[in-house]
Amino acid sequence: MTEIYPEGQKKIDEMYMERALKLAEKGRGTTTPNPMVGAVIVKNGKVIGEGYHIRAGEGHAEVNAFRDAGDEDVSGATMYVTLEPCSHYGKTPPCVDKIVEKRIGRVVVAALDPNPMVAGRGIQKIRDAGIPVVTGVLAEKSIQLNEVFMKYIVEKNPFVLLKAAMSLDGKIATSFGESQWISGEASREEVHHLRHELTGIMAGIGTVLADNPMLNCRIPDGKQPIRIIVDSHLAIPEDSKLVQSAREYPLIVAKLPGNDKAKEERLQKLGVRMIEVDADSEGHVDLKLLMEKLGQLQIDSILLEGGGRLAEGALQAGIVDKVQFYIAPMIIGGMHSKTPVEGSGITELGQAWKVSDWKVEPVGNDLKVTGYIRERG
Amino acid sequence: MTEIYPEGQKKIDEMYMERALKLAEKGRGTTTPNPMVGAVIVKNGKVIGEGYHIRAGEGHAEVNAFRDAGDEDVSGATMYVTLEPCSHYGKTPPCVDKIVEKRIGRVVVAALDPNPMVAGRGIQKIRDAGIPVVTGVLAEKSIQLNEVFMKYIVEKNPFVLLKAAMSLDGKIATSFGESQWISGEASREEVHHLRHELTGIMAGIGTVLADNPMLNCRIPDGKQPIRIIVDSHLAIPEDSKLVQSAREYPLIVAKLPGNDKAKEERLQKLGVRMIEVDADSEGHVDLKLLMEKLGQLQIDSILLEGGGRLAEGALQAGIVDKVQFYIAPMIIGGMHSKTPVEGSGITELGQAWKVSDWKVEPVGNDLKVTGYIRERG
Repeated sequence: MTEIYPEGQKKIDEMYMERALKLAEKGRGTTTPNPMVGAVIVKNGKVIGEGYHIRAGEGHAEVNAFRDAGDEDVSGATMYVTLEPCSHYGKTPPCVDKIVEKRIGRVVVAALDPNPMVAGRGIQKIRDAGIPVVTGVLAEKSIQLNEVFMKYIVEKNPFVLLKAAMSLDGKIATSFGESQWISGEASREEVHHLRHELTGIMAGIGTVLADNPMLNCRIPDGKQPIRIIVDSHLAIPEDSKLVQSAREYPLIVAKLPGNDKAKEERLQKLGVRMIEVDADSEGHVDLKLLMEKLGQLQIDSILLEGGGRLAEGALQAGIVDKVQFYIAPMIIGGMHSKTPVEGSGITELGQAWKVSDWKVEPVGNDLKVTGYIRERG
Repeated sequence: MTEIYPEGQKKIDEMYMERALKLAEKGRGTTTPNPMVGAVIVKNGKVIGEGYHIRAGEGHAEVNAFRDAGDEDVSGATMYVTLEPCSHYGKTPPCVDKIVEKRIGRVVVAALDPNPMVAGRGIQKIRDAGIPVVTGVLAEKSIQLNEVFMKYIVEKNPFVLLKAAMSLDGKIATSFGESQWISGEASREEVHHLRHELTGIMAGIGTVLADNPMLNCRIPDGKQPIRIIVDSHLAIPEDSKLVQSAREYPLIVAKLPGNDKAKEERLQKLGVRMIEVDADSEGHVDLKLLMEKLGQLQIDSILLEGGGRLAEGALQAGIVDKVQFYIAPMIIGGMHSKTPVEGSGITELGQAWKVSDWKVEPVGNDLKVTGYIRERG
């Protein structure tokens, strides 16, 4: 069935959906494991209610928009919502029932529910109640906004963002290992926002031994990421900042089976959570298996921040979804200076990891390049 | 004396100067060692003549604009010219005499002559003849257009542009040395235009031994750059493409004094020009001295294309003026993969070479980052 969708109406719908997307964005960092969703109720060309999902377990965007509308008569109004309304009982009753009950006149949806088991069901239920529904309005934007959720809900593995800060000539430290700071203040502040937004932060043991980092989030009222260290042979020093702060900020150490049981117990007593993962073909912690285990712990997203070797291992394991490189306006040089992706790397260009949909924007004096890893070669 | 310069007039002047700059640009690659210059003659709001400098020894932009005006009466007209008109006899008579003789009513100039010995003299002569002159209109654009000329005319050393093509993670080849091609077709075509525009192209012996390159310009009717190989110990193979094509495309080999005299003679017989340069503190060809020698050979500009070690040596020697990095949307990885700037590099971040006035633009699927090296640390 081809529906008639006049251009003028489409422009209006996109305008309100843009507003709903802006509202959704406000939930960044707090909705996990739920998606960010925004909703706007419009009647006679006037916004009479709007809301967004703030926190899992609390009201959905649609419910918050109805609450915002208060005593206004919403019957016959158009509801704009950035994600397909839910049709099942979760921690809150289904939003579709509320939409039907409130006698909304028309529903405009950006993206469908990413879960293939339920995608389209919510919309069907609304249509079954005789309410016209338009879908796909600014769908791409809604999908990108929830790229973490979209992956996790389907694959149950965390969305992995590989971040690096490098000089224009691709170095993450000088030949003497100095790396603080290559990127500017604005970039570093952005990274702390990433730590707030993503559920986990992951680094290799090499970075821990070299830099003794905290890997916490330093923005006021920021959410602290779960710190994950890939440490095949349990080499993490007990007096490292990470271990010493494990009671304050969660710390997971991913190791191979076996190792020093006494050290393991001491670390556990200090608050460290241990995850045992089988070895991959090269004898290191199998990162694909680790992702499955972290996914089971409700870790939907990971900021991969430390170490060119772990970065390469993650790319080889196929677990990297997105890259975000900050490029600083300086040249460092040095054939032994560290680079963002090391390991053995590829031998033929045909095997390179392709960066898709990349874009660049200035952040302070740096350039930020983001893109997606979808294919290889 | 503060001159009155109404905003409306300034806008008009900038519009015509923009046109003159576009004309000047047409001479790119052929005016060497002269600057690119454009001129526009406007009378009663109408362009009645325009021209640009095409080739050294031929007419200046002003003369070409007068010629273009033909029989039109240029008296009282405004002349826009991107560089201060010359006031001395060179290969052609002084343009200022022509401007006075033709009874031009007003002259608008972008940039002054960069040569401090003559800067302002041309303008003074025009003013002395009673013709009002405005200077500095779009001066920055004119200076940037002629950045090569501006350096060479003052310092007599070539303007050096360091170019590299790398992956997003800063690699110029895979761990096996494969580098063809990291950058896309559009970027590679741009590089051939650079080879056409710049007078010389320089690479290190390492690149010659690894890649056996031609380093020629492959655009139809392109000017061939003078190929310069930095080869301290005269290791260049006699059967290399460079040596074998030395009669067709000029080839200079820069070496330390001494070495294999018999090989030197054989190379000279094959058409190779030898330049002896004293050693720097590390025992390599002193690049600063080499630049002086190349400057004396009227080489006003050099595209530095080959090898991370030479790139670092050039930065250390302080001879790099500008960098142009093409970043391709791929990740290569590898702790032993080559990077654009190698050598020993800096040890402390405070010593890094700063990249000033950098900008980024897309070229095909790649990003092109350009900037200037003006200070260190």
